[in-house]
Amino acid sequence: MQCLLVYDIPEDKIRSKVADICLDYGLARIQYSAFLGEMNHNRQEEILQKIRRRVGKHAANVQLFPICEKDLGLRKELSVGGYGFSVPSPQP
Amino acid sequence: MQCLLVYDIPEDKIRSKVADICLDYGLARIQYSAFLGEMNHNRQEEILQKIRRRVGKHAANVQLFPICEKDLGLRKELSVGGYGFSVPSPQP
Repeated sequence: MQCLLVYDIPEDKIRSKVADICLDYGLARIQYSAFLGEMNHNRQEEILQKIRRRVGKHAANVQLFPICEKDLGLRKELSVGGYGFSVPSPQP
Repeated sequence: MQCLLVYDIPEDKIRSKVADICLDYGLARIQYSAFLGEMNHNRQEEILQKIRRRVGKHAANVQLFPICEKDLGLRKELSVGGYGFSVPSPQP
């Protein structure tokens, strides 16, 4: 299932490590703090566990939203000044 | 329908104005750059139009994801150090 992962992490170093984890899990960056990609239930649990370990006791808020294809088709985007990352088409 | 709105806006002043618009539309802040709340199709178009006007030619990327109740029930959150905003229960 496609999942949107968004985070608020104040420390640069930790934030950067979490971004790397997201990319390692094959998620595509759609904004600086938002990633989108296919993850089944196990992968969702696994990435959150991995992020939890990496974050340790540092302040962080991470939210993962599984989004069905139908809803994903309703996504709307406003991009001004060429700002933002390109959103890949969902892979089957 | 519940909608998640996330943004990347580099200029503080513009970002703050867009946050105000989200709050004006009754969305709840769930992270610094993520808001969640009920909006029908018209309201979704309306808020994006309002944000577009406010952003003008300033760099911005705003993405709006309608998410059905079923998917919203699958949301997962990791919060460390009391970091993050409280997520309200969806209103019917």
